Amino acid sequence: MVIILEDKIPEAKIQAIMNVLDARHLRPHLSVGEERTIIGVLGNTSQVDTFSLEALEGVERVVRITDPYKLASKTFRSEPDVFDLGKGVLIGGGHFVNMAGPCAIESYEQLDSTAQAVSQAGAKVLRGGAYKPRTSPYSFQGEGVVGLKWMREIADRYDMLVVSEVMSEVDIEGMMPYVDIFQIGTRNAQNFRLLKAVGQTNKAVLLKRGMAMTVDEWLSSAEYVLSEGNDRVILCERGIRTFERAYRATLDIAAVPVVRAKTHLPIIIDPSHAAGEEKYVPALALAATAIAADGLIIEVHPDPPSAVSDAAQQLTFDQYEDLMKKVHTLEEVVGLEDGSNPANWL
Amino acid sequence: MVIILEDKIPEAKIQAIMNVLDARHLRPHLSVGEERTIIGVLGNTSQVDTFSLEALEGVERVVRITDPYKLASKTFRSEPDVFDLGKGVLIGGGHFVNMAGPCAIESYEQLDSTAQAVSQAGAKVLRGGAYKPRTSPYSFQGEGVVGLKWMREIADRYDMLVVSEVMSEVDIEGMMPYVDIFQIGTRNAQNFRLLKAVGQTNKAVLLKRGMAMTVDEWLSSAEYVLSEGNDRVILCERGIRTFERAYRATLDIAAVPVVRAKTHLPIIIDPSHAAGEEKYVPALALAATAIAADGLIIEVHPDPPSAVSDAAQQLTFDQYEDLMKKVHTLEEVVGLEDGSNPANWL
Amino acid sequence: MVIILEDKIPEAKIQAIMNVLDARHLRPHLSVGEERTIIGVLGNTSQVDTFSLEALEGVERVVRITDPYKLASKTFRSEPDVFDLGKGVLIGGGHFVNMAGPCAIESYEQLDSTAQAVSQAGAKVLRGGAYKPRTSPYSFQGEGVVGLKWMREIADRYDMLVVSEVMSEVDIEGMMPYVDIFQIGTRNAQNFRLLKAVGQTNKAVLLKRGMAMTVDEWLSSAEYVLSEGNDRVILCERGIRTFERAYRATLDIAAVPVVRAKTHLPIIIDPSHAAGEEKYVPALALAATAIAADGLIIEVHPDPPSAVSDAAQQLTFDQYEDLMKKVHTLEEVVGLEDGSNPANWL
Amino acid sequence: MVIILEDKIPEAKIQAIMNVLDARHLRPHLSVGEERTIIGVLGNTSQVDTFSLEALEGVERVVRITDPYKLASKTFRSEPDVFDLGKGVLIGGGHFVNMAGPCAIESYEQLDSTAQAVSQAGAKVLRGGAYKPRTSPYSFQGEGVVGLKWMREIADRYDMLVVSEVMSEVDIEGMMPYVDIFQIGTRNAQNFRLLKAVGQTNKAVLLKRGMAMTVDEWLSSAEYVLSEGNDRVILCERGIRTFERAYRATLDIAAVPVVRAKTHLPIIIDPSHAAGEEKYVPALALAATAIAADGLIIEVHPDPPSAVSDAAQQLTFDQYEDLMKKVHTLEEVVGLEDGSNPANWL
Repeated sequence: MVIILEDKIPEAKIQAIMNVLDARHLRPHLSVGEERTIIGVLGNTSQVDTFSLEALEGVERVVRITDPYKLASKTFRSEPDVFDLGKGVLIGGGHFVNMAGPCAIESYEQLDSTAQAVSQAGAKVLRGGAYKPRTSPYSFQGEGVVGLKWMREIADRYDMLVVSEVMSEVDIEGMMPYVDIFQIGTRNAQNFRLLKAVGQTNKAVLLKRGMAMTVDEWLSSAEYVLSEGNDRVILCERGIRTFERAYRATLDIAAVPVVRAKTHLPIIIDPSHAAGEEKYVPALALAATAIAADGLIIEVHPDPPSAVSDAAQQLTFDQYEDLMKKVHTLEEVVGLEDGSNPANWL
Repeated sequence: MVIILEDKIPEAKIQAIMNVLDARHLRPHLSVGEERTIIGVLGNTSQVDTFSLEALEGVERVVRITDPYKLASKTFRSEPDVFDLGKGVLIGGGHFVNMAGPCAIESYEQLDSTAQAVSQAGAKVLRGGAYKPRTSPYSFQGEGVVGLKWMREIADRYDMLVVSEVMSEVDIEGMMPYVDIFQIGTRNAQNFRLLKAVGQTNKAVLLKRGMAMTVDEWLSSAEYVLSEGNDRVILCERGIRTFERAYRATLDIAAVPVVRAKTHLPIIIDPSHAAGEEKYVPALALAATAIAADGLIIEVHPDPPSAVSDAAQQLTFDQYEDLMKKVHTLEEVVGLEDGSNPANWL
Repeated sequence: MVIILEDKIPEAKIQAIMNVLDARHLRPHLSVGEERTIIGVLGNTSQVDTFSLEALEGVERVVRITDPYKLASKTFRSEPDVFDLGKGVLIGGGHFVNMAGPCAIESYEQLDSTAQAVSQAGAKVLRGGAYKPRTSPYSFQGEGVVGLKWMREIADRYDMLVVSEVMSEVDIEGMMPYVDIFQIGTRNAQNFRLLKAVGQTNKAVLLKRGMAMTVDEWLSSAEYVLSEGNDRVILCERGIRTFERAYRATLDIAAVPVVRAKTHLPIIIDPSHAAGEEKYVPALALAATAIAADGLIIEVHPDPPSAVSDAAQQLTFDQYEDLMKKVHTLEEVVGLEDGSNPANWL
Repeated sequence: MVIILEDKIPEAKIQAIMNVLDARHLRPHLSVGEERTIIGVLGNTSQVDTFSLEALEGVERVVRITDPYKLASKTFRSEPDVFDLGKGVLIGGGHFVNMAGPCAIESYEQLDSTAQAVSQAGAKVLRGGAYKPRTSPYSFQGEGVVGLKWMREIADRYDMLVVSEVMSEVDIEGMMPYVDIFQIGTRNAQNFRLLKAVGQTNKAVLLKRGMAMTVDEWLSSAEYVLSEGNDRVILCERGIRTFERAYRATLDIAAVPVVRAKTHLPIIIDPSHAAGEEKYVPALALAATAIAADGLIIEVHPDPPSAVSDAAQQLTFDQYEDLMKKVHTLEEVVGLEDGSNPANWL
């Protein structure tokens, strides 16, 4: 931690700041420059609030050198995670996982036909919302546990895993028998109580990035799950909010190499919510594969125009099958098809 | 709702779209232009998903004319709300309310001295966090119910009301005896389950705007509270996230007139979280008063540099007292001091 | 300048970095911490490119302590500027200047009636575009020098000054006889050649902020003008681009106190372009006055709906007159009416 | 164009609006709904200012159905452009072009060695700045025409083309003998006078996207070039400005399919300026190739740490050679290597 002092600060004020640091058992090292004086603070500063130091008179700025998260950092674990999501499906370190399914669970038949189609195309994880976070309270709110029961039965039939969004800690216990992976949605990405609660389960967690969340904040949210003892967290980039409106959200494709540089956690891409329109989904999915993400989660529906939510961005079965052929071609080029190390690629 | 069709769309496709609309009991009116053909859709379209219509072949864009919220809209109620927050403290329609207190409840003494100071300066509502949403799991998480008990006792001593953040529906029952106003924080502004849960209580709700939330989404979140039967919702603008880093968040001062044009709900300003530094707080508070917001919520602490959170942005007692004098001067100019209609001002 | 080295960097790499710094005649001071080693760099580092240092192997991050601008900084001049725009019209340090006029010069009559109306209401500077930067090449591009001749004659009739936008260094000479203040528009805020060119004239410069420009970049653009010898630069905040679309641009009202803290240059507010709709203009103008900006520039038109550009955001004469009464009331409260120091206000 | 009227608008106001539209020779069609009344406006509305219609009393919103650009639109030309940049180097429609070179021209030797290295790796166009747009006036401003002479000679030696940034219309004539492609930089992306000026030359134009520019505004800037008679415009996505600071700018990879859907102009990607750090450049370049962009422009330097500008983001010769091998692999997969139609890919 580096404390930058104000220009022309009198000696007495510097001493006062040093006294505060001493009192907090931090070890300050003064460095007097011609333009500015700075104080380097040694020792474990991870619990020190930079704002409280910036509040001291004479302090201009405080720069944190170490990250606010620990378990999520590469300092804690330098190699990429590889873990089993269930049924031997590995993710990370060259194991690429395709997840697919409808935005919302609408009926048994809808889900069954979709699961069959996407599993044949190569998807190993079935997605589908039973509890839907809708902007308007008057929109369809999901089928709840009934839908989850269908989903479990159907996923098992096609030897798939289940990922579904949890919107409240109250629902966790009821969802436990049915899901393999708890999804934390964009709007709950800083719902810290929910993050702690899924951190206390033994299920993997798919953590979507908040719409205006920096990568560092995202990793801090992951830290909430990890610090409760659950070490299977998958990050999911799904587009951030910017000024552009030609699509639903700006897919931050650079998040993939940035996340690789900062953490050992796997990262997958959700091209469907970024695109907002099915016509842009394949392009984004292919870019995500070439940049060596650890997987894709894509919305697929038997009849998109009739879908009760996100109709415009869901792919048909044929579109998904066609896309998966290209994705598999790229997986081979990138070295992702069999868990072989894609390190030679990127 | 207006459906804009693609350029040079064949007659058969238009008919197919019309059939879908008929099947959904919507009443389409075709209007053939030289460049584009459009379909105006009449009837109650508030539950129609625009995305599902955009998914139809031949549809380029769907424009919603009516807002997705109803109870929050001026169509539902055209005059600004005026309601009692408790103890006869009115807000809205010319009744300006000052709320103040520390970021977090740290001790009985800290809270007591702050309450005394801010109430003398004119604050009617005591703020203070008992459950703190911190970016890092290793930061101070709040004193919980113990802190709320202190707060209730202290607020009553100075004839003040209590506003405090609720982070989980699980905590609502335990907080009920102690708070007058439930605060929904920025990070939970689209935690729809929490919004519904506070909507089922008889407490007023202070709804902070999410960091990347449009005004329309904010009003849709308010609608979640209103639609459960709780009609005392106060909006709170606290800065949005942009590219600028000279302060903590960009205070969207224009949100005040925009909200006035769209809804009857009162809106207050939180200059502390927008500024992020105490030196910018007074300027933002004065701008908020001149633009005829319905109140201010400001962080005040007996000794800001020693605060466990948000140290840099909290005002001292003297700073708050000095600011309040100027705020009261402006309240008189604007016509806010006594609930007289500030309509002649703006 | 502080150089933060990578974790666990070997001794040899540190020495290599120190050698590079020595070779560039910088004076590095090494500070070895438990977690990280940092190098403080003393001496004049304003011409050092932080990126070139970040490119050195073993360097994680470089933090600049001093600002990239000099003449614009408060270190160079600590008191707010007060200068004469012409005809004894002072701006800055408590001298509040009202500028007003149509978006574009359309006809002699249009401009004459507007100048009469706004000067009666208290405006001292007449605005009006002769060269218009339009998003589409097919939109009205302005009347050019013909319009400027009208403007000069009319402004003199009402004892006003002229501010008009310059879009190319090629036009400067032709505009010199007619304008008192060169306006640099949002889209040219980093057109460095144009900034240098107006820096070589003896006219004051009104520098609008770019749509996605940080305050530091804005002051660096001002530095381009100042470094050519022209020390009369007025900053103009007109809204930044964010995700919100309820208005045309997000007025960054906090820019006023931030600019005050960083520079001696005066800052005015353009509520018209931020609002994009006339109904929001008065509210923003009043907030700007209460926050002690140094002036306002507002679009006014005899018949807004017939205007060739920006029709929706221009005020009528009556609207402007009504607004100015309130602005003058606030000027008195703030202590801006007569150049008395508003330091007691903010 | 669709005009949405305010709720409960009286008959007389509707008639007044209809009269205005008639007077402007537009053909309005009234459509009375239960909630809202709308007016569809037929005929050529491309020159109508939507703001002027929104200014009419009783109008809530105006929605433009057709794009504000014509020559750049797919309505004007539906097939992707393929054109010769010089020396038979084709771009567009499956012809992928690699451009590379240093950020700034620093010396003859620097440029010569770089040209040799990048041309051997497959680059056909040499980039290098002779006029540099620097945020600070005290930073290196470029070698000017001297540098361009070196560049022309060196490019011809390796059978390459020259692309270099033009910062002012004043420089165009002097640059004409040396460059093949005029680059318009991010900061001048809405410098309309410069756009018109390069539109009057017979050189291809590389138009970088502005930092806060929507795709529609970008195409409107391209229209300024096209409308002057120059039909060889290449769009270049280089990252947009958002709240994220983990890299220099957010690469908007989705701009590629969006641009394909809206225009016939080719689009290339600049991963260097988006990344801001060399370690992220290869990942972004590979994503750009997989998404079937029409080319890449990458910064390469013999010794990046010693570069006078953008040192951190330039690749070494070895890094570029290694990256190009992977890019060529992907070009083959995508079907870009020989101008064969990549339509089967995306």
